Amino acid sequence: MQDSNTGQILAADWVIPMTEDNQWMDNNAVVILNDEIVDLLNTQEAKNKYPDYDVIDLPGHVIMPGFVNSHCHAAMNLLRGFSDDLPLKQWLEDAIWPAEGKFVSNEFVYEGTQLAIAELIRSGTTCFQDMYFMPKHAANAAVEAGIRAVIGFSVMEFPTSWAKDSQEYIDKGMAVFHDYNHPLIDFNFAPHAPYTVAKETFEKLVLLSEEHNMSIQVHVHETDFEVESFEKEHGVRPITRLKEIGLLTPKLNAVHMTQLNDQEIQWFAEAGSHVIHCPQSNMKLASGICPTQKLIEAGVNVAIGTDGAASNNDLDMLDETKSAALVAKLDELNPTAMNAYQALYAATMGGAKALGKGDKIGSITKGKLADLIAIDLNRIETQPLYNPISQIVYAASRDQITHLWVNGKMLMKNRELLTIDSNKIMQQTLIWRDKIAAIKV
Amino acid sequence: MQDSNTGQILAADWVIPMTEDNQWMDNNAVVILNDEIVDLLNTQEAKNKYPDYDVIDLPGHVIMPGFVNSHCHAAMNLLRGFSDDLPLKQWLEDAIWPAEGKFVSNEFVYEGTQLAIAELIRSGTTCFQDMYFMPKHAANAAVEAGIRAVIGFSVMEFPTSWAKDSQEYIDKGMAVFHDYNHPLIDFNFAPHAPYTVAKETFEKLVLLSEEHNMSIQVHVHETDFEVESFEKEHGVRPITRLKEIGLLTPKLNAVHMTQLNDQEIQWFAEAGSHVIHCPQSNMKLASGICPTQKLIEAGVNVAIGTDGAASNNDLDMLDETKSAALVAKLDELNPTAMNAYQALYAATMGGAKALGKGDKIGSITKGKLADLIAIDLNRIETQPLYNPISQIVYAASRDQITHLWVNGKMLMKNRELLTIDSNKIMQQTLIWRDKIAAIKV
Repeated sequence: MQDSNTGQILAADWVIPMTEDNQWMDNNAVVILNDEIVDLLNTQEAKNKYPDYDVIDLPGHVIMPGFVNSHCHAAMNLLRGFSDDLPLKQWLEDAIWPAEGKFVSNEFVYEGTQLAIAELIRSGTTCFQDMYFMPKHAANAAVEAGIRAVIGFSVMEFPTSWAKDSQEYIDKGMAVFHDYNHPLIDFNFAPHAPYTVAKETFEKLVLLSEEHNMSIQVHVHETDFEVESFEKEHGVRPITRLKEIGLLTPKLNAVHMTQLNDQEIQWFAEAGSHVIHCPQSNMKLASGICPTQKLIEAGVNVAIGTDGAASNNDLDMLDETKSAALVAKLDELNPTAMNAYQALYAATMGGAKALGKGDKIGSITKGKLADLIAIDLNRIETQPLYNPISQIVYAASRDQITHLWVNGKMLMKNRELLTIDSNKIMQQTLIWRDKIAAIKV
Repeated sequence: MQDSNTGQILAADWVIPMTEDNQWMDNNAVVILNDEIVDLLNTQEAKNKYPDYDVIDLPGHVIMPGFVNSHCHAAMNLLRGFSDDLPLKQWLEDAIWPAEGKFVSNEFVYEGTQLAIAELIRSGTTCFQDMYFMPKHAANAAVEAGIRAVIGFSVMEFPTSWAKDSQEYIDKGMAVFHDYNHPLIDFNFAPHAPYTVAKETFEKLVLLSEEHNMSIQVHVHETDFEVESFEKEHGVRPITRLKEIGLLTPKLNAVHMTQLNDQEIQWFAEAGSHVIHCPQSNMKLASGICPTQKLIEAGVNVAIGTDGAASNNDLDMLDETKSAALVAKLDELNPTAMNAYQALYAATMGGAKALGKGDKIGSITKGKLADLIAIDLNRIETQPLYNPISQIVYAASRDQITHLWVNGKMLMKNRELLTIDSNKIMQQTLIWRDKIAAIKV
């Protein structure tokens, strides 16, 4: 929340509200009072109508809703580039799991999430959905930085340094859910995947989800191997199993989804379940392509996530949005698939809907919370400019994102982080680097 | 060439010479005298051995060879984002060709290429291969900026504002080739494609290519439609035709190549012809994927190009290299395909070889020309750092490229362009923008 109750006028060359297809406004202002968007109008009219408000002039900039990174493993930023270009099994068994087994702790999660949040803000994300361990420590990092987050607490059958079995994962997660209370933070269930979480555990989660109105985030159909081996063991594909259990509801965020048949797409459309597309991770790990164009045409809400920095290797939603637009065209062999506006919608409003916040964030609409970014398009790389939406998706890069607000509070100004001590984060990251590198084979 | 003959010691945390698989050196220096790399050794030793040389300390940086952008249409930067997300035929016939027909001129090529070069330098390219019209004006822009270039002059059967038929394209191009003499500039033939250039014209080019030792750059097998319709008309696939004509030699740069059978890959390997991979353009225009992993395994040299900004929409070789690494894994469904080093090799040494400059640029080797870049990895986005090669390809972005040298001369220092007036380029681009936007439907 804003410390003072002075209003702010953010005046830019273009405003992209993300409320109407391919629409933007020239020389427009977004007016904020406290944490809320209260008006959206021509800049000169705004200055006349709100003469006492602070004016932030952003020539050459576009203002748009902040990105909603709908799936990441924030603390894994400490394992960015620890191990690349390996087969999935070797990557997990010889690199990532041993490193996690040795290092994951409250401090790892807190400091890893701090590093991730610094990166998220610097690349325009105002809200992220996390899936990891020690949820209280991830939430603390988010609250201190002032960023919005949905912290998913992992649930699986096998033990980690956080819990010993699925019941303990649930109990420890629910304890945090009951204790922690901050307007920037929601918690949800993050059962790892149908092949690592038992049917009975999913059944418990469905009941708890209804009882506490909590959403459920799951990796689903990430690879064909996963689908085939599940089908061999259980006689049905994982999504069929999830449907039988009652997971296909508007509370479901199904992540990855590279292997889908028409029936499954139809089920998602009917249930109002959400799909979280992680295009770069799916390419880098050679998982496949989520059929976003087919999903969108069927009426399924699609959001975008970066996945963790150990597999991606960054949390750059702008780059991920470009990849989403490009890979959809390749998938369909159709250059009109997932156009720039659709990709940007998935990265903002699509994410807001998936996270159950479609009425609060994701677009520039009067009454919504002021989660906004400003992007400088007055650069060699984004000139000449014929369409700011196309330019953002296909030509801009993260360093052009200059300002960011969450709940009307400025967290980044001219690329400077206002709520985060970057030097401290760089120093603590170096210490982790040396510890972690020492175990590397 | 350097104005003074003082030597320079570029001292960085890491040097990636691109001479040995996945190799880098810590705390190393690259020593330059005039336009040449004369030594590569530990920084302290360098300072002892060359006490009179200027030292440029680059803490937190990596030094590597500059990128070789092996295919672009530089002047088309003025049409960046002019028209996106359309079917190929509509994009060409309703947007790009009418705009080119109306605007392409000496001034368009000169000022469009200036804009492109500013972007190329700001994203780490030290040498680019161009395919467009009015080659003298493109060359002038390169010489004035101090960047190395191979300027391909277009050859096709149909008329444009540059020439009326294939013979005139050749004559006008050869006139520039004979008149223009600058160490930074080479010219080559750029016949547009097998479906737009007659067999007899290709035969002339083969003879001229041998006579004048000039390479040939062609769009080949960009889409399956192109291959199928050619086969329907001529009874053979385009590459078979090119082979019959005698084009498959080490002088051939075949661009795109998304549709290849094993026989064609084998022919390229045997001939020593080069493949220029443009992954983002191939995705955005829904053309397909060039099978780089199969080509590399067969022994074919693969280089990377951005294609023009009208289709990509940027000339960012770093982002293109990441896309090359990612899309290869998707194509092969194998996460070990085109690893970070292989991708970076294609973007540097692979390009140097394709352009016939493998003995002069592309790696940090004593006796080669000093075409180099420095990348700042001491950033939130590229920390922690376990492997600088992986970090550059999968996590860095273009704004982290801080310094650039061509022939030992610094063209960019701390992101500031030293040979280009950015403000002037921005202003002239705005004027083009208004003219071109006015014809937009």
